[in-house]
Amino acid sequence: MKKKLLSACIALTLSAGASYTTSVLAQAKPEVLVKQRQSAMTLQGKYFGPLAAMMQGKAPYNAEVASRNAHFLDALSQMAWDGFTPATKDEKSRALPAIYDDAAKFKEAQDRFRGAVTKLVASANDEAAFKGAAGEVGKACGACHDNFRAK
Amino acid sequence: MKKKLLSACIALTLSAGASYTTSVLAQAKPEVLVKQRQSAMTLQGKYFGPLAAMMQGKAPYNAEVASRNAHFLDALSQMAWDGFTPATKDEKSRALPAIYDDAAKFKEAQDRFRGAVTKLVASANDEAAFKGAAGEVGKACGACHDNFRAK
Repeated sequence: MKKKLLSACIALTLSAGASYTTSVLAQAKPEVLVKQRQSAMTLQGKYFGPLAAMMQGKAPYNAEVASRNAHFLDALSQMAWDGFTPATKDEKSRALPAIYDDAAKFKEAQDRFRGAVTKLVASANDEAAFKGAAGEVGKACGACHDNFRAK
Repeated sequence: MKKKLLSACIALTLSAGASYTTSVLAQAKPEVLVKQRQSAMTLQGKYFGPLAAMMQGKAPYNAEVASRNAHFLDALSQMAWDGFTPATKDEKSRALPAIYDDAAKFKEAQDRFRGAVTKLVASANDEAAFKGAAGEVGKACGACHDNFRAK
């Protein structure tokens, strides 16, 4: 019974995710890559939203939530990038051609965002430092969306 | 200019994510909760897939990938659950009514999965232990899908 469940689960993982990705097996299909990278963006929104609210004074600062969400963002902020392969160019999404035409600038925008999130993690327990760091994360989001995402 | 970018980013976060969630602000809309929890599942598939392949011997064991993916799963495995609120019952998804009708059993399935992922993180650098732990994660996925997800 346990073996049956395990096999079923692996089969589901393979068929649903089709995501024996990058480092280990063949590249996932373009539509799967788009779905995965959009999932990372969706979750970044989920966990940055409450931090933006705290930063703006629309919600009270809460060190526990700030720290938890910053740690989640630390993981999530590493997840979208390998989904932006040239093979996904023709998939429906808001990704702009500049992503593939100026890969160095896109990488720079990713690095800026990653750096800002790293500082956010380090500052989550200090309200003033946290608010400054969250501001930098917000600017990094906005700068990348401005240049690489359709309005 | 920086302020403009920041404002644009926050506006985007708010409108796209609508996710000033749980602990801080009002609950997100049901369709947003479904999208967020499905995003967590999609990314769990992305990062468990290569580990399942290693476990089955379909890909060579790679300690670096095993450890990175296990850490990602440690974060991701905490992200879906607050999206399963009764308010989402009527949204289109494969979630079964048992999620809401037997909340204790659903919580138990989450805890089993979380526990298995914690062990996976701890064992990622030891091939034999890693393979055993990945098997337990796979069984936890399968058991939960079996009981709480439509075929």
